[in-house]
Amino acid sequence: MTRDAELTRSKLLDAATTEFATYGIAGARVDRISETAGVNKRMIYAYFGNKEQLFETVIGRSLEDLVDEVPLDEQDLPAYAGKLFDYLVAHPERRRLALWRQLEGPGLTTREIDSMQEKIARIERARPQDGRLSGQAVLTFIMALVPAWPPPTAGTDAELLANQRADVVESVRRLTTP
Amino acid sequence: MTRDAELTRSKLLDAATTEFATYGIAGARVDRISETAGVNKRMIYAYFGNKEQLFETVIGRSLEDLVDEVPLDEQDLPAYAGKLFDYLVAHPERRRLALWRQLEGPGLTTREIDSMQEKIARIERARPQDGRLSGQAVLTFIMALVPAWPPPTAGTDAELLANQRADVVESVRRLTTP
Repeated sequence: MTRDAELTRSKLLDAATTEFATYGIAGARVDRISETAGVNKRMIYAYFGNKEQLFETVIGRSLEDLVDEVPLDEQDLPAYAGKLFDYLVAHPERRRLALWRQLEGPGLTTREIDSMQEKIARIERARPQDGRLSGQAVLTFIMALVPAWPPPTAGTDAELLANQRADVVESVRRLTTP
Repeated sequence: MTRDAELTRSKLLDAATTEFATYGIAGARVDRISETAGVNKRMIYAYFGNKEQLFETVIGRSLEDLVDEVPLDEQDLPAYAGKLFDYLVAHPERRRLALWRQLEGPGLTTREIDSMQEKIARIERARPQDGRLSGQAVLTFIMALVPAWPPPTAGTDAELLANQRADVVESVRRLTTP
C-alpha cells in the first residue's frame, strides 16, 4: 500500500470508529463517515466493503490497540484489571463499541476468538490450583468487572475515579482468590 | 382508571417493551408500537407523553417486575445472584433494555435510584465487617457479574447454562468474601 493509501485508510478508520461508537451499526451513516474523514465515499467500499465489514475492521483494530497497550499479565490479574480500567477511561469509544456489538451482533471475529483463547490458556497455566473457576470464567468475569462503574463524565472527580479503580482491583483480587 | 383503559395501557407497554428492547430509543418507532398493540397511536401520547417518557415508563415497570420477582437477599448474596441470573435468562429483553440505556441515556429514574440506595443500605447493614468494598461497590459488581456470560441462544444447552450459573454464584461468593 502506498503512503497516501495508508493515510486515507487510517482517516476513514478513525472517522468510522467515532461514528460506530456514537450511533451503532444500524444508526451509522457511511455518508457521515466519508464527510468526517474528508474522503470520497467510494473509497470506503473499495477499502472495506460494506458497512458491516467496516464495523468488523473497526472492532478488529480496536482489539489490537488494546492488546498492544494492555498486554495480559496472568501473574498479576488484579493489576491487569487496573490497567484495563485506565485504558477504558482514556478510550470511552472502546466501551461503547463493545456495548453496540452486544446489541446488534455480529459475533466475535476469528482474531478475537484466537486472542481470547490464548489468554484463557495462559490464565489456566498460571493458576492451575483453582478447581472451581475455569480460565474462561476468570477472563469473562474480569471483563465484566472492569467496566462495571458508569463511565466517567465531566462531573467525575479524580478521587472518585481512583476509588472506583481501587474497587475494581480489589474485586479481581477476590475473584482470583479461591 | 377503567378496566378497558388499564388493558389498553398494558397492551401498549408490552409492545413498547419489545420495541425498545429490539431497536433502542433512537431506533424505536411509535407507529410500530401502535400497530403491534392494535391501539391508536394517539393513545400513546395521551397515556405516556413522548417516546422518551414512554421509555422511562417501560424501564420503571421492568424494574418493579424484577424487584417483585427477585427481592434482594442481603444475607445470601451468592444465592441472590443465582436468582437474578435465572431471571435474565427468562427475560432477555431486560438485559437489552439495560444495554440500550447505557448507550442512549437517559440516566436512572428517581425510583431506580431510591431502589438502589435501599439495597445498598441493606447490604451495608448485613456486612459491616467488609472494610475494603462498600455496599455500593458490592451491588455494582454483582450487577456486572450476573450478565457477564453472553446471553443464551437456541444453541445453548442446559448443562452449559447450569455451569455458567454456578460460576456466577461462585464469583459472587468470592466477591463477598473479604
